[in-house]
Amino acid sequence: MKKVIIDVDTGIDDALAIAYAIRSEALDILGITTCFGNVSVEEATRNTLQVLEVLQAADIPVVPGYAKPLERDHLKGKALHVHGENGLGNVELPVPESRARTIAAEDFILDNLRSFPKQVTYIALGSLTNLAAAIQKDPAIIELVDKVVVMGGAVRVPGNVKPHAEANIYTDPEAADFVFQSGIPLTLVGLDVTLKTLLTPEDVKVWEELDTPHSRFLADISKFYIDFYMRENGLAGCGLHDPLAVGVAIDQEFVKTEPLYVRVDLGEEIGKTYEVGRGEEQSLIDVALEVDAEKFKDHFMQMIVHGPGV
Amino acid sequence: MKKVIIDVDTGIDDALAIAYAIRSEALDILGITTCFGNVSVEEATRNTLQVLEVLQAADIPVVPGYAKPLERDHLKGKALHVHGENGLGNVELPVPESRARTIAAEDFILDNLRSFPKQVTYIALGSLTNLAAAIQKDPAIIELVDKVVVMGGAVRVPGNVKPHAEANIYTDPEAADFVFQSGIPLTLVGLDVTLKTLLTPEDVKVWEELDTPHSRFLADISKFYIDFYMRENGLAGCGLHDPLAVGVAIDQEFVKTEPLYVRVDLGEEIGKTYEVGRGEEQSLIDVALEVDAEKFKDHFMQMIVHGPGV
Repeated sequence: MKKVIIDVDTGIDDALAIAYAIRSEALDILGITTCFGNVSVEEATRNTLQVLEVLQAADIPVVPGYAKPLERDHLKGKALHVHGENGLGNVELPVPESRARTIAAEDFILDNLRSFPKQVTYIALGSLTNLAAAIQKDPAIIELVDKVVVMGGAVRVPGNVKPHAEANIYTDPEAADFVFQSGIPLTLVGLDVTLKTLLTPEDVKVWEELDTPHSRFLADISKFYIDFYMRENGLAGCGLHDPLAVGVAIDQEFVKTEPLYVRVDLGEEIGKTYEVGRGEEQSLIDVALEVDAEKFKDHFMQMIVHGPGV
Repeated sequence: MKKVIIDVDTGIDDALAIAYAIRSEALDILGITTCFGNVSVEEATRNTLQVLEVLQAADIPVVPGYAKPLERDHLKGKALHVHGENGLGNVELPVPESRARTIAAEDFILDNLRSFPKQVTYIALGSLTNLAAAIQKDPAIIELVDKVVVMGGAVRVPGNVKPHAEANIYTDPEAADFVFQSGIPLTLVGLDVTLKTLLTPEDVKVWEELDTPHSRFLADISKFYIDFYMRENGLAGCGLHDPLAVGVAIDQEFVKTEPLYVRVDLGEEIGKTYEVGRGEEQSLIDVALEVDAEKFKDHFMQMIVHGPGV
C-alpha cells in the first residue's frame, strides 16, 4: 500500500475522496490534515472526524492545520452555496466522538515525511497552505516526499470560483505559487481534467438503491453538490475534483500529464494558473491535461461502495 | 484493546516487554517513546527499532525522548554489564530500515492523551523523565490519562543499582518524585514484585527448542541477562521487571496493590523510594506488593511465543 497524507477542507467532494481512499484499500492513510477553504478549518476538522466515523475509520489521525492564508487575510469566503451550510450538503451527522490531534499540521507532515523518506504521497485537496508552511519550515521535504498530487488550478480551461481562477488555488495563491516554484515533485489535477469526470444523478441512484448506511451517506451528501452544478453550471453532474486527485495517487495512468512551467498570478487576475516559458526560477510540474474518464469513473464507483473485494 | 504508550530504555527486559505487549494482542500500542537509562537514548531508539523489526511490528511509531535527567547531569551510568555492550545482550541485529519519528516525545505523549481522553495507559519501563516533562508542559494530562503503570522502585525490599535504590528511579530521582507527587493515577510495579517473577534457563530452553526466528531472538537476548542475575545476585533466573509492568497494564489482577504515600529520596540515599505518612503535598499511589507469579508467568510465556491464538 502507498503511504499517503491527505490534506482536506471537507467539503462534499473531499468526503467522497476520503471514502474512495479508504474503500480502495490501495492507500495506507498516515493521517488527514485539515485546512480552511470550502469551510473554516474548525468545520473541516469536524466534518472530517464525522466522515471518518461514518466510514468506520476513526482510527485515522485528523490533524488541524491553517485557519487562513499564509501571507494575507482571507481572499475567498467559504463555499456554503456549493457544499451546504455545514459543508456536507446539510446532511446532519452526530457530534464526533473522536478528537483531532493537537500537534501542528506542518509538524505532522514533516514528521511523517522524515520517518518514511521517498515513501509518502501527499494529496492536497484544499489550498496549499499547510504544505507551503511545511516546506518553509524544512525545505528538506522537497527531497523526502515521494510525490505530491494537487487538486487545483485550471491551466487551459476557465476557472470556477472566478472566471480566471480555480477555488483551491484562489484560496491561497501565494502558498500555491510558492509550492509550484519549490521544486517539489508535483502532479496538478485541475479543472482541465476534473470537469470531465462527472458524478450524475444516475450514479447517486445506484447508491440509493444499494441502501447501506455507507451508500446512503454518499448519496445524501452528493445530491446537494450535484444540484449546485446542474443549476449553476448547466452540467450533467458534479465534478469529481478531489476524488480524481486520489485516483491519480492510486494510479497515475488515469491521466496524461505534460511537464509545464506554471505560475500563479498574484496581481490583477489573482489565483490564475498559467503556463510560462522556461525562466530562471521555475520548476516543471506535471499537469494533467487528459483523463481516461470512463476508466477512472468505473474504478471510483466500484471502490467507493464495494471496495476491492467484489 | 487498551490503547497504550510504552516508554522504554531498551534493554533486554524492555525488549521482552515489547514482545509481550505486541504478541498478547491485548494492547493497541499508539507508540513507543524512548529514554536514556540502560543505554543512551540513541541506543534505546536504535534497539527499539531493531526489536520491532524482528517482531515484524515496524509500523509502531518510535519517538526519541530525553537524553539526560530533567534537572541534573547523569547520576547513573549505562548498565552494559547487565544488558551487554549494545543493550541487547550483544546479540547483533541488522541496522534498522525504519526510522524514529522526529517530533518530541513529550509532544507525542501529550497529543495522544488529548486525542484519546481517559483511554490511554502509559507504561513507563525506564526513568520517568519523559512523563515528568510531559506533565510539566501540560498538567491537564494528569486528568486525561487513564492510568500510568511504572516499573520502578523498591518500597519494602532492597534496591538493585544501589543497596537503597532501584535503577529506573535512581536514573532520574527528581522526575520520579515529581511524577509520584503530581496526582496522576499511578500503579508502581517495583522490585517488591518483579523479583518474584523470574525467567529461568528452563524457560529459555523452551524458546530455543521452539526454534522460530522470534523464539530464538528471545532466547538469545535473555541468556546474557539471566547469566548476570545468576552470577551477581545468586537468583534462579532474571527478574521479569518490564514484562510484569506490561502484564499489569493488561490485567491488574496479576498483582495486589496498596494505596501508599511514596516519596523519592533526593538527599543522602538518593533514589530510594520510601513510604511516608499523609502530608500536605502527597498523592496516594497504588504500590504492587504481592504478585500471582504463576498466573503472570503462564500468561507471559504463552503470549510471548504463541500469542492469544493458541
